[in-house]
Formats: sequence, C-alpha cells, structure tokens
Amino acid sequence: MDISEILRAVRDGGLTVEEAEGKIRYKPLEDLRFAMLDYHRELRAGFPEVIYGAGKSAEQVAAIAANMRKNGAERLLLTRATPELAAAVRAHYPGAAHCAEAGLVVVSGPPVPKNKGRILVVSGGTSDLPVCEEAAVTAETLGHKVTRLYDVGVSGIHRLLSRADALMSARVVVAVAGMEGALPSVIGGLCDCPVIAVPTSVGYGASFGGLSALLTMLNSCAPGISVVNIDNGFGAGYLAGMINGR
Amino acid sequence: MDISEILRAVRDGGLTVEEAEGKIRYKPLEDLRFAMLDYHRELRAGFPEVIYGAGKSAEQVAAIAANMRKNGAERLLLTRATPELAAAVRAHYPGAAHCAEAGLVVVSGPPVPKNKGRILVVSGGTSDLPVCEEAAVTAETLGHKVTRLYDVGVSGIHRLLSRADALMSARVVVAVAGMEGALPSVIGGLCDCPVIAVPTSVGYGASFGGLSALLTMLNSCAPGISVVNIDNGFGAGYLAGMINGR
Amino acid sequence: MDISEILRAVRDGGLTVEEAEGKIRYKPLEDLRFAMLDYHRELRAGFPEVIYGAGKSAEQVAAIAANMRKNGAERLLLTRATPELAAAVRAHYPGAAHCAEAGLVVVSGPPVPKNKGRILVVSGGTSDLPVCEEAAVTAETLGHKVTRLYDVGVSGIHRLLSRADALMSARVVVAVAGMEGALPSVIGGLCDCPVIAVPTSVGYGASFGGLSALLTMLNSCAPGISVVNIDNGFGAGYLAGMINGR
Amino acid sequence: MDISEILRAVRDGGLTVEEAEGKIRYKPLEDLRFAMLDYHRELRAGFPEVIYGAGKSAEQVAAIAANMRKNGAERLLLTRATPELAAAVRAHYPGAAHCAEAGLVVVSGPPVPKNKGRILVVSGGTSDLPVCEEAAVTAETLGHKVTRLYDVGVSGIHRLLSRADALMSARVVVAVAGMEGALPSVIGGLCDCPVIAVPTSVGYGASFGGLSALLTMLNSCAPGISVVNIDNGFGAGYLAGMINGR
Amino acid sequence: MDISEILRAVRDGGLTVEEAEGKIRYKPLEDLRFAMLDYHRELRAGFPEVIYGAGKSAEQVAAIAANMRKNGAERLLLTRATPELAAAVRAHYPGAAHCAEAGLVVVSGPPVPKNKGRILVVSGGTSDLPVCEEAAVTAETLGHKVTRLYDVGVSGIHRLLSRADALMSARVVVAVAGMEGALPSVIGGLCDCPVIAVPTSVGYGASFGGLSALLTMLNSCAPGISVVNIDNGFGAGYLAGMINGR
Amino acid sequence: MDISEILRAVRDGGLTVEEAEGKIRYKPLEDLRFAMLDYHRELRAGFPEVIYGAGKSAEQVAAIAANMRKNGAERLLLTRATPELAAAVRAHYPGAAHCAEAGLVVVSGPPVPKNKGRILVVSGGTSDLPVCEEAAVTAETLGHKVTRLYDVGVSGIHRLLSRADALMSARVVVAVAGMEGALPSVIGGLCDCPVIAVPTSVGYGASFGGLSALLTMLNSCAPGISVVNIDNGFGAGYLAGMINGR
Amino acid sequence: MDISEILRAVRDGGLTVEEAEGKIRYKPLEDLRFAMLDYHRELRAGFPEVIYGAGKSAEQVAAIAANMRKNGAERLLLTRATPELAAAVRAHYPGAAHCAEAGLVVVSGPPVPKNKGRILVVSGGTSDLPVCEEAAVTAETLGHKVTRLYDVGVSGIHRLLSRADALMSARVVVAVAGMEGALPSVIGGLCDCPVIAVPTSVGYGASFGGLSALLTMLNSCAPGISVVNIDNGFGAGYLAGMINGR
Amino acid sequence: MDISEILRAVRDGGLTVEEAEGKIRYKPLEDLRFAMLDYHRELRAGFPEVIYGAGKSAEQVAAIAANMRKNGAERLLLTRATPELAAAVRAHYPGAAHCAEAGLVVVSGPPVPKNKGRILVVSGGTSDLPVCEEAAVTAETLGHKVTRLYDVGVSGIHRLLSRADALMSARVVVAVAGMEGALPSVIGGLCDCPVIAVPTSVGYGASFGGLSALLTMLNSCAPGISVVNIDNGFGAGYLAGMINGR
Repeated sequence: MDISEILRAVRDGGLTVEEAEGKIRYKPLEDLRFAMLDYHRELRAGFPEVIYGAGKSAEQVAAIAANMRKNGAERLLLTRATPELAAAVRAHYPGAAHCAEAGLVVVSGPPVPKNKGRILVVSGGTSDLPVCEEAAVTAETLGHKVTRLYDVGVSGIHRLLSRADALMSARVVVAVAGMEGALPSVIGGLCDCPVIAVPTSVGYGASFGGLSALLTMLNSCAPGISVVNIDNGFGAGYLAGMINGR
Repeated sequence: MDISEILRAVRDGGLTVEEAEGKIRYKPLEDLRFAMLDYHRELRAGFPEVIYGAGKSAEQVAAIAANMRKNGAERLLLTRATPELAAAVRAHYPGAAHCAEAGLVVVSGPPVPKNKGRILVVSGGTSDLPVCEEAAVTAETLGHKVTRLYDVGVSGIHRLLSRADALMSARVVVAVAGMEGALPSVIGGLCDCPVIAVPTSVGYGASFGGLSALLTMLNSCAPGISVVNIDNGFGAGYLAGMINGR
Repeated sequence: MDISEILRAVRDGGLTVEEAEGKIRYKPLEDLRFAMLDYHRELRAGFPEVIYGAGKSAEQVAAIAANMRKNGAERLLLTRATPELAAAVRAHYPGAAHCAEAGLVVVSGPPVPKNKGRILVVSGGTSDLPVCEEAAVTAETLGHKVTRLYDVGVSGIHRLLSRADALMSARVVVAVAGMEGALPSVIGGLCDCPVIAVPTSVGYGASFGGLSALLTMLNSCAPGISVVNIDNGFGAGYLAGMINGR
Repeated sequence: MDISEILRAVRDGGLTVEEAEGKIRYKPLEDLRFAMLDYHRELRAGFPEVIYGAGKSAEQVAAIAANMRKNGAERLLLTRATPELAAAVRAHYPGAAHCAEAGLVVVSGPPVPKNKGRILVVSGGTSDLPVCEEAAVTAETLGHKVTRLYDVGVSGIHRLLSRADALMSARVVVAVAGMEGALPSVIGGLCDCPVIAVPTSVGYGASFGGLSALLTMLNSCAPGISVVNIDNGFGAGYLAGMINGR
Repeated sequence: MDISEILRAVRDGGLTVEEAEGKIRYKPLEDLRFAMLDYHRELRAGFPEVIYGAGKSAEQVAAIAANMRKNGAERLLLTRATPELAAAVRAHYPGAAHCAEAGLVVVSGPPVPKNKGRILVVSGGTSDLPVCEEAAVTAETLGHKVTRLYDVGVSGIHRLLSRADALMSARVVVAVAGMEGALPSVIGGLCDCPVIAVPTSVGYGASFGGLSALLTMLNSCAPGISVVNIDNGFGAGYLAGMINGR
Repeated sequence: MDISEILRAVRDGGLTVEEAEGKIRYKPLEDLRFAMLDYHRELRAGFPEVIYGAGKSAEQVAAIAANMRKNGAERLLLTRATPELAAAVRAHYPGAAHCAEAGLVVVSGPPVPKNKGRILVVSGGTSDLPVCEEAAVTAETLGHKVTRLYDVGVSGIHRLLSRADALMSARVVVAVAGMEGALPSVIGGLCDCPVIAVPTSVGYGASFGGLSALLTMLNSCAPGISVVNIDNGFGAGYLAGMINGR
Repeated sequence: MDISEILRAVRDGGLTVEEAEGKIRYKPLEDLRFAMLDYHRELRAGFPEVIYGAGKSAEQVAAIAANMRKNGAERLLLTRATPELAAAVRAHYPGAAHCAEAGLVVVSGPPVPKNKGRILVVSGGTSDLPVCEEAAVTAETLGHKVTRLYDVGVSGIHRLLSRADALMSARVVVAVAGMEGALPSVIGGLCDCPVIAVPTSVGYGASFGGLSALLTMLNSCAPGISVVNIDNGFGAGYLAGMINGR
Repeated sequence: MDISEILRAVRDGGLTVEEAEGKIRYKPLEDLRFAMLDYHRELRAGFPEVIYGAGKSAEQVAAIAANMRKNGAERLLLTRATPELAAAVRAHYPGAAHCAEAGLVVVSGPPVPKNKGRILVVSGGTSDLPVCEEAAVTAETLGHKVTRLYDVGVSGIHRLLSRADALMSARVVVAVAGMEGALPSVIGGLCDCPVIAVPTSVGYGASFGGLSALLTMLNSCAPGISVVNIDNGFGAGYLAGMINGR
C-alpha cells in the first residue's frame, strides 16, 4: 500500500486519519522520499550501475549481473575486472566489452548523447596507464569525449608544454601521477579549468604506496585542484563526467 | 622589442633572418606564449588576484596592495587576514571589506554577472565555520550564489535529511567537516552533483590535526567526491566556482 | 500543517490526494519520523543536553544556555569548561556547579533515580585525573553510582590487585591510562565486565600525544575491552552509563 | 597442602604459627585468590573457551582441543579457522560446527539460556561480511539473539534509514565498516544504545589497511561509541554479549 | 588483623579453620605477599623515592615531600624540576640540592657505599647536555661513579676515538644523541659492555622530535645496545645503576 | 616549417607579419627552445639513455630497445633488470652486458674519455651490495673511475678507519647503508668531499623498509651530505658522475 | 712491518725519523690500536662469532663457515637459519646444532664456564616463542643459565604472579611480547633487576607489525626497562648475557 | 711529546723500543692521524668555522666566539642567529655582519679567491626566502658566486621557464620549496647539473611541517637530484660550495 493508496483510502473513508498517520510513520523511508532520488538517477541518460570488482568472486559478480539483467538494467560498469569476472558478466550481457588495460568491463547500452566539453586525461609516466585508462573509459562510458595525453611528466616539462593546445581546450583535466606527483600542480598553473588529481601507487622507496604523491597533490599551491584516492581512476573519471555534464 | 616588431623588422629588412631567429629563441618565454594565458585570465569577469596572508607581515601586504593598485587591479582577495593585514590593504583600497569570520579581505571591483547555478556550503559542526565562510565568501566574490547549511553533522542525520531541498537544488556542494569527517560521504550518496570535501583541523585526540577527516574523505565510497587540503576553504570555494562556471 | 492536519483535509475534501502526496513528500523529514526519536530522548530520565566547550567563546556558551533555559531544559553538561564558560552558564542557570578538575559544568535538574549497578573509574597515574573526573562526573550526572580507584598503574601491580573487591563488584569499568596504556589489559583479565579504555595524552617522548596508549589498548588480548578517543573522558562516562543503564 | 590443610595443621598443633605463615606467603598466588575468578568464569552459563587460530598449526590446535576434552570443557570457540584447523578440532569434538564465512569453529555444548535483548550487527558493504559473521556467530554462541543488517553503508543512507525499526529495537549494535568507516557515527546518532565500532581492513589506496576507518570511528562525535581493533569481529561479538548480558 | 594474628587465633581456638580461610582470601594482597617486595626495596642501600616533576604543581610536590618526610624517607629524587618545584621540596628537606642543568632535585641521605664499576655518559652534542646530566646525576645519587664524555658526535669521530681509554674502562655506557642518533652504534662497536641508548628530541626538520634518533638506535647492528624513551635521562641513569650494581 | 623558414617567408613576402606571429605562437614549444637542451644532451660524451626496468614487461623493453636501435642510440642503461629483460635488450643490442648483481644491463658504446676524479662507493653491510653495484656500474658506464669499499659499517668503525686513504683520495663518495644508516655521518666527518647518502631497505623490525636509515641520513650533523631515495643506487651513481664531471 | 719493527729500525739507523713517521701515519689504523680490542674479544670465554642468516644464500653461509673454520674459530652462532643454511654450516662444522624453533645454528665449542646469575626469558603468548627461543639459546650459547616462563601475558595476570619465585630470583629478565606489549611494564614493577623488552611482530589490525608493542615498551613507567628492535631475540639474549656477565 | 719527538728519542737512545711502542699506542688518536685532516681543513681557503645557533644562549655563543678569537680563527659562520646572538659574536669580532633574513652572522676574514662556477638558488615562493638566503649567504661566505631566482614556483611555470638562461648557466642549483615541493623535479628536467633540493616547513594542513615536500623531492623522477633536511639552507649552501669547488 503506497502513499497515494493510503490517501485515497482516507478520502474514501476506508482508513481513519489515525490509522493512516500510523501507516505513514512506519513505512520504510525510501517509499516516502528517496525513491524519488533513485528514479531521478535512472532517468539520467547513460548512467550505468557500477560494481566494484575488487575482492568479489566470479560467482558473486555473475549473480549481480543476472539480477541487473532481470531488472532491465541496460548499462553496467565493472571495475578492477579480471578475465574471469569479465566472463561472469558476459554470461548475462553477451555484448559486454572488457577493457583489460583499464581493468573495466563495460555494457554500454543505447547510445549516450555526447556532452559538449572535452575531458583531458594526462599522465606522468607509462606505468600510470592502467589508472588513466580506468578514468578515461569510465568517462567515455558516461558519454564524454576524452583526450589522452600520456607520459608527459614534470621532469621533462617541454613534452607537456608542447601540448598546450590540448590543455587549453579541455573543460576538465584528470591528472594522474605517481612518484613525486607534481604533475597536477604544473597543469593547474597552466590551464584554468578544474583539475582532478589522481595519485598512483607507482614508485618505490619513500613513495610509500602512493602516499608521497597524495601529499604532494593535496599541498598544491595552484588553485582549482582536488584529489581522489590513490589509484582511484574510476572515481576521477566519474567526477570528471559530473563536472563536464554540469 | 616584441615578436611583431621583430617580424616587421625582418619584413622591412631591418633584421636578417639569423638575427631574428636568435632574438626569438632567447626572448623570455612568456612573451611568446604564456602572456596569452594571463591575458585570458584578466579578461575573465570577476577574477580577483589572490594573496595568501598567512606568514606575511603588514608591510609586505601593503607593498603588494600598493603595487596592484598601481597596475590597475580592480579586485583582490586576501586570505588568512588579521585586522592588521586588513588595515594594510585598506591603505590602498579604502573600500576593502574585512570578513573576520572567514579571515578574508575582499576588494570586489565592479559588479560581477551572477553565475546561474547555486553552490551549497555544508558543515558538520559550528567549529568548522571559519573554513566554511572562507569557502563561501570566496565563491561569492567570484560571482556565485551560495547557500549555507551549517551544523548538520552525521551524528544527527535527520538535521541533514530535513534539508533535502537544499541538497537537491545545488550544482556543486562544498562539504566541510572535522573530527570523523563523514559528512561528504553521506552527502555524496544523497545528491548527484560534484562534492568538494574539505577536512578541517577541528577535533582532538586521534584527529591528528585533520588527518583523520582527510583519510575518511579520501576513502569515501560515494562517487563524485574529491578532496582539498586540510582547512583549505579558499581552495574549495575557488574550485566550486570553477565548476559552477563551466 | 502537520501530517494529521493533511490527512484530515484529505478526508474532508480540502485537499486532493495528489496535493496531499506532494505535501508529505516535501515536508522536512523530522516531522515525519525522527521527532519520535527526540521525544524518546527527552523522556529518558536524567539525560542532560551536552555542550562541547572546547573552542567556544563565553558569548556562544551564554547564548546556548539562554536558549536551553527558554526551552525549559532542566539539565545541562558543559565539557572542557573554563571558569569563564562556567560563569556564562551560571548567568542563566545560577545553580550550575563547576567541577574544575573534570573541566565540567553541571546543571543537575531534579533528582535522577539511581541505576542499580556501579561504575568503576580506574587510572594508572595521578596525571590522568582530569580525564578520570570527566568520566566519573559525567556518569554521576546521568544518575550512576561511581567508585574511583586512582593511581593503580601496572608498574606497581599490587596496588591494583589489593583492590580486587572493587574490580569484582563493578558492572562497567572505565580504565584511564597514558604512557604505555597497559592498565585496561590487566583489568580486562581480572574482571569479566565490559572495560572502556581511555588513552590519555599524558606522557613524553615516544608517547606521541597518546598514540602509544591508544595502540596498546586497541591491541589488548583481553576480551571485553573497547576504546574511545584520546582524553575523551566524557565519551567514556556517557557510554559507561549507557551500558550500566541497560 | 592447601590453605585449609595448613590451617587445620595449625589448629591441631602440626604446624607452628611461623611455619604456617611461611607456607602461605610462598604458595603460588592462584591458590589463594584467583582460582575464585576462574571458578566464577566456569560457572557462567555458555561461556566457551576461546582459541585464537591465527598462526597456529593443526597439530597445536588438535593438542589444545584434546586437552580441553580431557578436562571436560563442553564449549569451545576457535577463531580464524581454516578447514584444516576445523578438522583438528573435530578429531576431538566430532560435533564441532565450522562456520566458514566467519572463520569460526564452534562447539556449542548444552543449550544456553537466551539473553533477553537483541544484538544488531550492521555492515557498510558486502566485503565486510566475514568480520560481521565473526561477531554475529560469536554472540550467538554465547547465547544471544542477533539481527543481521548488511550492506547499508552511509553513501546510500536511505537503505539504513529504511530499517529504523531494527535500529530502534537493538540493545547493542556492532557496526562494521571499512573504507571511510562512517557507519558507526550515523548509527550512533540514530539510536541510543551502545555502539561497538569495528574497522575493517577492506579498502584500498589511502585506507592504509583499516587505519582510515579506525581513526574515523575514534573521532566520532556521536556519544555511545567505542572501538575495537581492525577486523576484530570476535572481540566485538564477545563485548556485545557482555553488555547485553548485563 | 594480620596473618600471624589470624594463625595465632586458629591455634588458640579463637577462629575456626573456615573463618580463617575466609579472612585470608579476602585480605588485601599486599598484606600477603608484596610487602616483602617493598621491604626488600627499602633495604637496598641508596635507593631514593622518585617523583616525576613534569606536570605537577608546586603544591602537589610540596605535599608529596611533606608526606615522605613524615614517613621518614631519607632520600628523594625529583625529575623535570623547575626552581619552583625545588623550593617546594626544600620547604621539607632544607638540604635538597637542585641540579638545574639536569632538572633534578636531589636529597642524598646518608652516604651510599660506592659501587665498584664506572658508568660512562657520552653525548653527541652540547644540546644533549640536560638529558646527559639527568642520567649522570641519577646514577651518582644511586651511588655510582660516573665519567662524563660530552660533545663527541660521530661527525667528528676522532674526538670519540681519542678517548678510547674512557670507553674501554666503563662497565656500562649511557650514549645520548639527538639528530641522526648514530653515536650508540659506533660506541657499541668499540667497547663490549652494555650500551644504553637515549635518543633526544634535539634536532630539526625530519628529526620529528627524536623519532629519527630513536629509530636509528633501535636498528643498530652493534650487539649490546638497548634503547629507552626519548629524552629519558632518568631512566637510562637508573638502569645503568641497576646493571652496574649487579 | 621551422622558425628560419617562417622568417625567410616574412622577409620574402610569402607570409604577412600577422600570419607569421600566429605560426610562431602555436608551434610546439620544443621546436622553439628545448630542442637545444636535448641536442646538448646528445652531445655530452658517454651519456646513455636510461630505461627503468621495474614493472616493465620483456615485450615493452624489447620495443624500446628496438626503437633506440633504429634511432641510432649507441648507449643504453636498463635498471632493475631481470634475465628476461636482459635477453629482450640483447635481441637488439647483442653486445649488451648484464650485471646481475647490480640489476643493470649496459650497452657501453664507443669508449668514454675517463673523468679525472675518483668516485668511492662505500657500504655498511654485504646485504647492501646490489644497491652499491647499481651505483658503481652506473658511474662506470658514464665514464668514471670507481673504488669499491664494502662491508665497513659503523659498528666496526676500525674497518672504515683503516681505509682512510681511500676516503681521502675520493672526489665524491656514495655511502650506502641500511638498518641504522649511520655510515654517511661518519664518512662526512672524515673526508671533505660531497657525500651522497643512499638508504637501503635492508633491515627488519623498526627499520620500516628503509625509513629509519633515510631519517638518519637526513638528520646527519656532518655538512656535505645529501640523500637520494631508498635503494636508489642508479640515482646516486648518476649524481656522483654529474658532480665528478663538474 | 709492524710498529716495533719500525722502531727497531729507527734505533738501529735503518730508518730516518722522517721515514718512520711516514710509515706510522699511513699504516692501517687497526695495526696501531684496534687490534687490541679484537684480541681482547677473542680472549673472552665463550664468545662466538655471529652470522646474520637473513637474506644470505647457502653458498654465502658455507663460504663464511669455511673461512671461520680455516681461521680456527671454535664457536659460531647463525641467526635466522633455515634447514638449508644449517646444512651449509654443517658441511664445515659437523657438530653444529640446529635449533629450529629459535632459528639458530650453534657451534658450541669447548665448555663455557657458567656465569653465576640466572637469565629469565618471559613471554606473553605462545606465538612469541620463536623470538623467546632465539634469546634463550643465544644466552645459553654464551654460557648463561636460562629459565623459560612462557605464555604468562598480562590479560591473565595471575599466571605471571604465581611464578613470583622465578621473577625474584632472576638477575636479568628478557620480556618478550607482541600485541599490546604490556608484559615488561608489569614485570618491571614486580622485580628490581634490568628488564630487556623485546616487541614482536605478532598481532593483527592496529599492531602494525610490532610498532604498537614497541611504543608501549618505550613508554613504560617502570624504571629499569630498555628496549631492543622488533623480533630481535638475538640482541636481547646477547645483551642479557653481557649484563649477567658483569 | 709528538711522534717525531718519540722517534728521535728512540734514535738517540732516550727511549727503548718497548717504551716508544707503548707511548704510540696510547696517544690520543688525533695526534697520529687526524690532525692531518684538521690541518688540511684549516688550509682550505675560505673555510669558516660553523656554529649552530639554534638553542644556544648568548653566553654560550660569546664564549665560543671568544675562544675562536683566542685561537686565531679568521672566519666564522653562525646559523639561526638572533640579534642577541649577533651581538654576542660582535663583542669579539666587531666586524661581524648580521644577515637577518638568512639568520646568519658572518665573519668573512681575508678575501676568498672566487670559485669559477656559479651557484643558482631558486625558490618556489616568497615564504621560503629565509631558507634561500641561508643557503645563498653560506655559499657566498665560502667564496662562491650566487644567482638568486625567487618566487618561480611550478604553479606558474612560465615564470621559471622565462629564466632558462639562469638555469642553463648554473654549475649547481639549490632548489628550495615548501608545500608540494615540486620545483626540484621540474628544474632537474630542465638543466643537467646537480640539483640540491631543500624542503621547507612552509605550508599548512597536510604539509605536515615539510614532510610532504621532503617526500616529493625524494621521489623525483629526474636524475641528478639529492635532498637535504627540512629548512636546512646552510647544509645546501655548504654542499653546493663543495660541488662547485670540485
């Protein structure tokens, strides 16, 4: 019995005011209010359901995919995906694409209208590539145009400067770097759009699994920079899409 | 002698090709390329020059303000401002407003066209107020509409939920919290716009000067959240403006 | 217009079902549900409102006290209270008691029925006394009987063992210790009631502001121990009361 | 020769006062005093002996189980149990149940009278399930009624709020969360019973093996919360039982 | 009623065996056993009572001194002593000596028989002197012969080597160093007696309040080295005395 | 079209001044300025291209080597090289030498003129040898004379002192040490040339993967010492060569 | 040519004063001075050569053993020994004993005169046993009498107290503990001999590989305690022997 | 009696060989060997004695200066100098110059021959100026030519690039930066001389007193960079002089 049914019963005399008040107070909250949020979410074009693959078994992923299929979900994004997890998704979504480099499995659904701006994904070194691709493919799956600019670290600054055109034309930048993690600071000083900094666990010695890069990025003097968790390419790509979609 | 003068001299025979090439190669780089960036920046309506007040003497701030005045700067934002620093600015910009709570001195310049969206600044506790105001006033100075929603921490979640209207109508959220720093996670799950999380150094014991809140925010499972440095209200307000201005 | 008014209007034809549904969906949530929680809370005997005094000015505290007075609050607990803050409370609650050692200001209200069990507050050294008293006075204000057993640290274990009677007769123990923080482990092995461990920032050198004691307590091998934040006597006293009141 | 024998010898003239005093002073202490404690412990209904399985070989566990069997122990709880360790227990207690998800082997013994209250075990994500089950099965083995409420993390707060009934009816809550660890704060604000917070090592990047969640929980502003060690589901379940059994 | 009185009553028929057993079981433990320890302690020549001065008020110290006086204590050592605390002791022990450099107040009592060996206190720099003196004066107060060898840090190793005589003739070495803390390692390789390493908080930048020196000392490859807390000169001097007194 | 072609076109009337200015502004930066740097770099005798081997697959290394071969690179240094990676290089540079101990693959190219000074590589223990060899072979590949002085740690200082001749005759010292990391301090006090300190991850317990040695070295009181990352033998050898080549 | 030969040549006119001075200045230092130290060391009864086995190959250990054999070494202690390393030693010392639990290989040499005192090795839990045995066997190899007292942790303090006899009769105590590491504090308060505290890496969650126990021990309030590195049983046993041998 | 006197006595029969050998063996070591080092040091032109001013009283500094004066020292460098310490030096060296910004007091002595190369001191922000000046004045006092290039941080990279001439002509670079500390990486990629990186404690929030900048610099991917302690301008200037003086 949902709210409008309760109200109709009140109007028609099937429920007293007191009975109705009790029913409303004790209903699960989402019936009252948050369903709206979720409905809104479903309506937003191109928004896929996201499954974090890390630590899940193939059986668990298959079960989730089966359930989503049953509920009619048209899009899906599985992160930290191994070939086994990709196979588990494909059992229910045969068209699912596995982007091995990004560690993502993507079910794209019907075409997504392209957003107008362009997201730039920049990396300091080739080892950061999986995190970059996780960000880039996530943003593309959400319907955004993405430019990749890899291996342009600050210790060879001219490589970065020679691509000033790409920096100037971006609406959002995802800057990925391990080791000293200085790339976002330099980019933040060159362009004036939001820069999402992604520290990676790439490095050795005193890089402490990405902590060094993380601290560097948090302490950047360039305004317009914010930081996501270490190796969190998905989060950066998703947020970049949110900002570009504004 | 700027580039067009050099080129004219080449055209008119006043310089040989070799002489001109040497001049171009050895010119300061900004003459060639980055002036464009700065020009662009000046053109952007409402963009003030920013002075970090922390650790500067009144004399230093006065000298900077005097220099900006001489160069015709119409807007100015001084962060971490004490009454002394405010006075130092006012000696050159008599109309400068001192927002003591935010620790900001603002020279607003001519009216800024209002941006269409609305920035929501949310805080977990009353002690986070100075950081909140630093964010809010920064965004307002840049020409944005700001809604303040203070003291709605997660340990009394109904206070936050009762303002779902404010959460749903924001285009960007700045979520400020000290202690356990859980506010941005909850907000990130409720609304679907970018959330800029600001950890504050408010807390005691194992809050370790904001480190606890910082880690909480970086580890949020809600997508759409990114983090700035501890107590960095200015950075959050500036970035929120960048995103809203997209 | 509250829920029952809305429902009456539906019954009487003053509102259509659609109008009523909209009103219910957009009402502040606490009207629907959480008022119940707060009402419950008010009914619980002896529950005072708590104000964290740290970082608040005398003016702020006076304003809060005045407001509570106006709303008829009969009890109040102000933590981290200086004499100035105590005076600010007394302006509105002349009978407020200032327990300087515990840093608490207490407005006790009408007599609280005593809970049956007994809470034992134990400390390792005399320097931990303020934290102990914060815990003990908090519990007493909530209507609990408290036994104090101070300066019985593990480096002189016979002092602790000679009071086995107090340990055996407690229903909850609050164990407060700085430096090496080993006291709760020993107590947890001696008695079989819940032990709330409170690390304090007392110590020097590698005690790192209480971090050493905190880690010791978290790693205790004795079952039945849990830990609150460094120096958080209030939290321990409050929780001890909750457990004793079960 | 125990104390009463010594005393009888004194009474009957078999020992002088001096001889007897010497014997008493040099007896092992447990003969005098602590046997009482252990006797008390054995009498408490449903209290099993606990073996920490981590780092023990199957041979060691088998030897302990054999010894317990010989001494007539009717109940036993083995934590961090692998199938090999489970088999080692079953060699001596054929009826031992292996709860693989919780990593526990349980010998239940004769029926335990049920405690009146109800313990609620809540988790933020599905990956925290083994820790949850360690807590829940431990509490059940001790004779408590347990409600499980899994995967209701703060980034989708409506899932938690829709189960307010479970929150309101619990006498103790065990709140398990990894990553940002914000769940206990929200729960602490919703219900007014003791909340035992268990940080888990689930997470990546800057979660630092559970440190982030641990700090979040220690810094919670909601009163009534205390914290156990990272992944320490057993400790939480045991403590919850102690509190519920008060 | 002490044990021998109880036993006499049993012998004389004033108490039954059962009554006596009850009395013995419930007596404070120290009556039974640990008094022996304390008696032993009092008998040991030259052992002073130690008061940690840090964080104590002059009133508290005066009260402790008065009480010790009343109980006939002949020796006393007050650490971290300011002139105010020294005065508080002198009110009750007029002959108390204040060693300002060591931050100690010493009441020496009757002459202590000198121990045969020699304790060497070595420091890396002049800034470590207060910690050195705390160690040296503590050991002297306990009746030990002390040689001081200051300012012989490892960055000028010949200063240390030129005093090989002092190193070779020591029975225990207390090696005090801040900054890089390498002194104990070098000394441990030169002489073959126990070396007590004391890290100091002297240093700047990445010395982190003594943490760097502490880690250095714990990781020394030279056998025969152990470490006490940062700046804990008292502890080192006391332990050196224990070892020399063996 | 490079700059001189643009200028010639201006001179000859093929381009207007405005057209030329646009072309210059939008050219990739390296065409203008930084090519010079790279040209310089190529000219410097004996400078090899460096490939970081860590985390690269044999395929990736083979591709890089093939490309370098195609571009005529005569020298190459591959760090963190496994036998597989060595084979991948040899497929394209059959004369490549694999120094297994240093983990380096070296393609030496034509003879390098020897630099006049001598680089001393010193180590504290035999376990530090791989890092030492990485430094030594790197420096040799760059054309420097290297003296090795291994296993002369500070806990047996006479071994080091007996080789004062080697210390006195070095122009740069690379001092490698794990565990307590005190070696560079002692060396810095003995000789007056630059000392490059390399912490290694050798150690256990509180060495924390090299952190202890790193802090020790940063806090050295001896002037003339600077530090590179943990285990970064390549960086130290390269920098030593730079300094010796001054 | 040693010093006396040089001097004789001077006396006999075979060398001028200047020639002799040069020879003396440039001789390896140990010829002058430190040989004495090493000679002394060889003379000390029962002192074995120590080889750290961790990270050494069987070949390296065999080579060292062969060399020691050749030089007539009668005793040897190999730490962190695997069966392979034990076999490598036995190839040259057939009588070498492998104590697997302690991870030690021992070549005992001729009987060592027993030292008079007794070393007590105490542990908090069974998991700390390997570290305990490393300490105990090391001390025994050096000629000391050792009492073992295992599994007497502070969470069951009566087990420890019941063995007060062992505590009172020890001349040195080695106290080994992981997890909360509180054992040395309690022991330091019970007995008045030097206590060497050994933190172990046993534990989980917030024990951080022994860091928690290490900090606990450094912060102990009981005097007479010093600390060695995490898991460093050898160092503790060696130092205990040094102290007992005073 | 020095070595040549001893030898002459042997030659002349005033000492037997045995007497002489004893005297040589027991002489302080520096007489034998290290005097040479110190003599060498005195001869090196322009090398001043260095006094660390931090934590020293005016009396102590005056005493040191007086002693140096008496011993004929012509040069002196006092670091971390306050006006009081400067006055204390001037009492004995009236010509001492106080460079307040650098916190240095300099007694220059006779003119130092200028070294041929040029040291470049670069800073990221104006707040780093005191550390920069400490480095620059130290190098100048040692006889080096210094170029200052301040406030050219990476968030406005064009300011740095516009001074490529200064970067290209330096023989050593001292790169000073706080906050994110990325400056040395960028400089290391632009020029090919040694770069000494100096992290400063300038920053707030997660800069953790310079730790963030320190880690950034240690993790730099650009070769040729090494790091000194936080705020250690003196050490960087001294080392830069050593390298330039090679």
